[in-house]
Amino acid sequence: MNAVSILGGTGQQGRGLARRLAAAGVTVTIGSRDPARARQGVSEWPMHPSAAALLVADNIAAVVDAALVILAVPFTSVDGLLDELRPHFSARAIVVDVTVPVTFAAGKMAMLEVTEGSASEHVRARLPEHVGVAAAFKTIPAHVLDDDANQPLDCDEFVCGDSEEARARAVSLVQLLPGLRPVDVGPLSRARSVEHLTALAIAINRRHKIHEARYRIVGL
Amino acid sequence: MNAVSILGGTGQQGRGLARRLAAAGVTVTIGSRDPARARQGVSEWPMHPSAAALLVADNIAAVVDAALVILAVPFTSVDGLLDELRPHFSARAIVVDVTVPVTFAAGKMAMLEVTEGSASEHVRARLPEHVGVAAAFKTIPAHVLDDDANQPLDCDEFVCGDSEEARARAVSLVQLLPGLRPVDVGPLSRARSVEHLTALAIAINRRHKIHEARYRIVGL
Repeated sequence: MNAVSILGGTGQQGRGLARRLAAAGVTVTIGSRDPARARQGVSEWPMHPSAAALLVADNIAAVVDAALVILAVPFTSVDGLLDELRPHFSARAIVVDVTVPVTFAAGKMAMLEVTEGSASEHVRARLPEHVGVAAAFKTIPAHVLDDDANQPLDCDEFVCGDSEEARARAVSLVQLLPGLRPVDVGPLSRARSVEHLTALAIAINRRHKIHEARYRIVGL
Repeated sequence: MNAVSILGGTGQQGRGLARRLAAAGVTVTIGSRDPARARQGVSEWPMHPSAAALLVADNIAAVVDAALVILAVPFTSVDGLLDELRPHFSARAIVVDVTVPVTFAAGKMAMLEVTEGSASEHVRARLPEHVGVAAAFKTIPAHVLDDDANQPLDCDEFVCGDSEEARARAVSLVQLLPGLRPVDVGPLSRARSVEHLTALAIAINRRHKIHEARYRIVGL
C-alpha cells in the first residue's frame, strides 16, 4: 500500500486524507477535473516535513493504474464521475467510498434515500465487477482530519466491504493514520448504518454547537 | 422523577433498568401480563442493598397513574400491547421507547423497515396525542445494564423526543444511572439513526465475538 489515488482530493475530506497519508509515506495522487488549477492549490498545502510528495493528475490518469482509489467527491457527484471513469479502472482495483448521502436543504440536515440501500452500494452498482468496493472514513469529520494533520487521531473508523480483500485493504489504509482504529463491521450492506452514524454525529454537532463529534466503540 | 413504570420489565433490558433505577432510589413498577408469576421472578433478583422496593402490577395498573413509562417489550410485541393500553395512559405521561426493530432470521441480523421511519415513531403513532414520546436506552446492551448492576456505566446514551419536555425527562432518566452520559440528538425522527447504531453494535459484537459493544462520542 504505497500508492493511493484520491478522487475529490481537493475537498476538505480528501485533502485531510491526502496530507495524512503522505505523512505516512504513501504516494498520493490527487485526481482532478482541472489538474493545473489543482496543482496550484495543492502546492500551497501545509505538509508534514517528511511527507511524500503529492502528485496531481486528471481523474482518468489517477485511476488507470491505481490499485487503491479513494472516492471523496460529494455524493451528488458520484454518478457523473463514475460514468466517466468506469472503463478506466485497473484490474483488481479497490475503491474506498467515503461519501455520505446527506443534504442540507433549508438548513436542515436529512439523509437521502438511496435505492441500493446505501451510498456504498450505490457506488458498487456503478463499477465494473472486477473492482472491489469498501466503505471507510465516513464518520470522521473532514476538518478533524484536515485541521491539524500532524496531530494523531483518537477515535474509531468503521470499515465494511464487498469481499474479505476489499475490507482488509481498507483496514490497512485506516491503520496508516496514527490513532485511528479500524473497526471491521462486515458486508457492504452495513454501510447504511455507518452513514446513519455520520448523520447522527452531524445532528449532535449542530445541536450542541460543536464541530468534531466522532465515535469510539467501548467494549472492543 | 421518583416513580417509573417499566413495560416488559422482566426481560433483560427491563430488568437491568429496573435494578439500576431502584438502586438510584426510584420507585419502579414492573408491568406484566401475569403479575403473580412476575412477582415470583422479581423477588429473586439480586438487588443493591439500599435499593427502593420493586412493585409489580398488571400492565394497565402500571400505566394508569404513571408519569413516566419505559417501553421495554420486544418490538414485535409493541402493537398488541399499545392497542390494549392506549386508553389507560395518564394525562401528560411520557413514554420512553427502548425498542429496536431488528430480527435474527436464520441467524442473520437485519433491521426491519418501519413505515413510520423508526420504532419510536411507530410507537408515537400508536399513542394518544397527550402522551409524549422519547427514545433512550436503545444502544446500551441489555446485559451490560443487567450483568453487574452495581457497576457504574462508561458510555453514552442517545436521547431524542417529540418535545422539549419529553427529551428533558428522558435525559433526566438517563442521568440517574451513574456513568451513563445522555446525548440529546433532537427530534424523534433521529430515532432511526439511533436504531442503526444498535444494529451496528450488534454486527460488531457478532463479527468480533464480543458482547458489549457500545458507544462513546469523542469531541463532546
